[in-house]
Amino acid sequence: MLNVSQAPDGKKYNIPTEEENALEREELIKITKEQRALGRKIVAVQGLGFVGCVMAAVVADAENEKGEPIYFVHGHQRPSKRSYWKVPVINTGVPPVASSDPEVPQIFHSTVVEKKNFRATSEDFVYGLVDVVVVDIQLDATKPSFGEAEKGYCDLLAFREGIRMLGQQIRPDCLVLVETTVPPGTCEKVVKPILEEEFTKRGIDIKETPPLVAHSYERVMPGAKYVSSIRDFWRVFAGVDEKSTELCREFLNNVLNVKEFPLTQLDSTNASELAKTMENTYRAVNIALTLEWARFAEQIGVDLFKVRDAIRKRKGTHDNLLRPSLGVGGYCLTKDPVLANWAMQTLFELDGCLDMAIRGVNINDTMPLHTINLIKTVIPELKDVKIAILGVSYLENVGDTRHSPSKTLVEFLRKDFAKVLTHDPYVEAWPELEDSHVESDIRAVLPGAEVVVFAVGHDQYKNLQPQEVLDICGTKPLIVDCSDFLSDERIAEYKRLGCVVRGVGKGHIV
Amino acid sequence: MLNVSQAPDGKKYNIPTEEENALEREELIKITKEQRALGRKIVAVQGLGFVGCVMAAVVADAENEKGEPIYFVHGHQRPSKRSYWKVPVINTGVPPVASSDPEVPQIFHSTVVEKKNFRATSEDFVYGLVDVVVVDIQLDATKPSFGEAEKGYCDLLAFREGIRMLGQQIRPDCLVLVETTVPPGTCEKVVKPILEEEFTKRGIDIKETPPLVAHSYERVMPGAKYVSSIRDFWRVFAGVDEKSTELCREFLNNVLNVKEFPLTQLDSTNASELAKTMENTYRAVNIALTLEWARFAEQIGVDLFKVRDAIRKRKGTHDNLLRPSLGVGGYCLTKDPVLANWAMQTLFELDGCLDMAIRGVNINDTMPLHTINLIKTVIPELKDVKIAILGVSYLENVGDTRHSPSKTLVEFLRKDFAKVLTHDPYVEAWPELEDSHVESDIRAVLPGAEVVVFAVGHDQYKNLQPQEVLDICGTKPLIVDCSDFLSDERIAEYKRLGCVVRGVGKGHIV
Repeated sequence: MLNVSQAPDGKKYNIPTEEENALEREELIKITKEQRALGRKIVAVQGLGFVGCVMAAVVADAENEKGEPIYFVHGHQRPSKRSYWKVPVINTGVPPVASSDPEVPQIFHSTVVEKKNFRATSEDFVYGLVDVVVVDIQLDATKPSFGEAEKGYCDLLAFREGIRMLGQQIRPDCLVLVETTVPPGTCEKVVKPILEEEFTKRGIDIKETPPLVAHSYERVMPGAKYVSSIRDFWRVFAGVDEKSTELCREFLNNVLNVKEFPLTQLDSTNASELAKTMENTYRAVNIALTLEWARFAEQIGVDLFKVRDAIRKRKGTHDNLLRPSLGVGGYCLTKDPVLANWAMQTLFELDGCLDMAIRGVNINDTMPLHTINLIKTVIPELKDVKIAILGVSYLENVGDTRHSPSKTLVEFLRKDFAKVLTHDPYVEAWPELEDSHVESDIRAVLPGAEVVVFAVGHDQYKNLQPQEVLDICGTKPLIVDCSDFLSDERIAEYKRLGCVVRGVGKGHIV
Repeated sequence: MLNVSQAPDGKKYNIPTEEENALEREELIKITKEQRALGRKIVAVQGLGFVGCVMAAVVADAENEKGEPIYFVHGHQRPSKRSYWKVPVINTGVPPVASSDPEVPQIFHSTVVEKKNFRATSEDFVYGLVDVVVVDIQLDATKPSFGEAEKGYCDLLAFREGIRMLGQQIRPDCLVLVETTVPPGTCEKVVKPILEEEFTKRGIDIKETPPLVAHSYERVMPGAKYVSSIRDFWRVFAGVDEKSTELCREFLNNVLNVKEFPLTQLDSTNASELAKTMENTYRAVNIALTLEWARFAEQIGVDLFKVRDAIRKRKGTHDNLLRPSLGVGGYCLTKDPVLANWAMQTLFELDGCLDMAIRGVNINDTMPLHTINLIKTVIPELKDVKIAILGVSYLENVGDTRHSPSKTLVEFLRKDFAKVLTHDPYVEAWPELEDSHVESDIRAVLPGAEVVVFAVGHDQYKNLQPQEVLDICGTKPLIVDCSDFLSDERIAEYKRLGCVVRGVGKGHIV
């Protein structure tokens, strides 16, 4: 079977045939007509990835003062083998993402099955039927060379295609709300011109009815408050003109918890796009700063985490100070500084470099090498040394492996011919790393381990008792604490049991 | 008269003769005896500079539960021509520093004149009489090459001499509490060894009675809450051993507002010293980051200050984000990263560099050149151009000129042969800049100005009406706003009146 899309649980779904698509188009027309008759506005969400699928559910969940849905939402996912399965899965009321947030299954069931105002489709045709398109196309930065983020770029090809398709389909009065984190300048220099081009081809007078484009960025966090992090949080937005701005404001006011978190309007989409990339750069640079001080602290007997706690007492001026760790992962801090730097040099053709930003990313991307150096201060030669890595996701108590620093750690340990075993209770598959096998039972990685790396702060690891670890290991491994996951008492206990312990930023234990 | 010390108000004071010093020593013995009889402990504060003089008053102001002073304080200032005048001035109950904080004259009058438990002296002999010495010796970083903080160093000569003198004088059970911001490692690697050396020379058994040394740093801010910023704020401390730690804790508990701001104890003086330099480095690096984004914003039509406001809505994670400006001044952010880097390389002889820290300082030190570049985008040739600089202090509504970025601004404008006039309502003299004359009347600098630079956010400048400025100028000058001191409405008004306006990080006005 060629046209099959396989879900993570192994279940296979046939990608629709042309005949099925024709039927789907009729269905889309019928549903949309019915929903308009109910007084609802029609929204499409383009891209049902990590943000898009939950954003679609949040939009569908929005109610007016009478408790009735304001919108009907068509979630749109391209019919690729990799992702088509999301369409039939969502249409049974099941979320296409795993999450520890109990609101995720609830909101999908409630909107898809009960209220019946959220439905997924793979038909592009849907965009011609809607009042608002929320663009949640995935967009990444490419960093062709490890530790050289200055060479990073943004491949806009798929994004441009997605926007062009909108230009070919949407009604002239449809608002295109870009929610994807994009290089600053994208709405003005990419989205609007493409829509204008396609409108003009369709004979639409863009002087009379210029395309309506706005930008607003979410600040989603995976984990136990996944849905809430999209709905109940500060939002920044801007439109390319007055009408776009007003439509965007109205839409966000309807959809988000603006009573507790009022909207922040900026003057231009450039400003809104810049804000998103700057706020993540701010964090990336702060983390990078902590690494050099962690190294210093390690060598002069200081616990940098206690120093950090002391500094952070100064609320409002010093409490954003972040912590050193194995490294920086996830989808935002690793790429947003690169998007901004690339935009400056390419979209705006300006001289120079966002130097602190790029330097910060380079320090963060190469940060896992510091943990390897820590191991080597105790075991200089790693060939055939059995190393157990506890944690491969990028965040504690979450199974998200996107740009996880554990990947860099494993890759470089493999270059030293170490025998690396990985464990993570939240991760079933690790698609980003070749030849990876993530154990879910800690007893599969600890026996015989000469080094145990506490890489991620999952609660399970924080609760491990030293005696228990050593019993399973059957050895007295080197214990490496990547980000203050072990208390001083626990470290003392490991030492009492005969282990050597090292930690990022933990000079006081040497 | 050779041995005369002149106060800033012009009044001259004779530096004591040997005969007078002999009498002073008797007086010190007598006073100390009387004060001990009252049940008070005796404290000396070494160095009556910006921190030391107010710290001395705060210590004297400390009371027990019965409302009685806990300590008698000898403030000590070396009898140099530059600073001796502070001794007689303080002894009349007058503070040796100008401040907008009304508590400053109050606390000096109250402790020196009313409670009579604070007295200044220039006699080293005093250190032999006390239970605690608070070290507030000035200590600066030297940056021999502009924009190359990596070459910066710390000249510890005078500091070492001050500590050696303590070692020759103090009782073996006297606590030496270092409050000066020092390069990390100073207490362990400089202070303690010198005291041990001098104790040993005096026949004191340092095994039996090792010198008692602790470190605790203030977080003083000049301005309207000067005294409170020393007393009512978070304090970090650490001692070189258990006894030093306990004595330090007891002293700080007596002196500071620890009910509202409990003390934070760290494990070692290395940690406490590192914390101080790291917290200032954190801010310095954050400011440096904003400059590159300000430049970007300027070129793509974005108001970076509105972007900053949007980002800072995220309290606790993003609200420490600082703002771009003319540059970074003052005594802490400009030198502390250099002290730490120098300590790492010199006191600890470690490889590497605190790269983000040093890069941050370099960006900040050279930041005023960006304002000159902004001027040059409108007026490329500055020879003979009359430029009025509004503000030469480093902080709004304060007259403190230490390391003010206006100094760099003026120096480089002079290199371009511009005619520079400076104004500041809070600054009488500008000792750091040669051939400087700071006007206190704005009418002395504006007439004929072709460029008006709003360099510092003094309220007086923020209140200036555009029409008023232009009336005094008699020109339509280029208006340069260095850090969002002018509202959009005011900028529009300047433009309406025929001025060109530019601003750091203010791309939306171009």
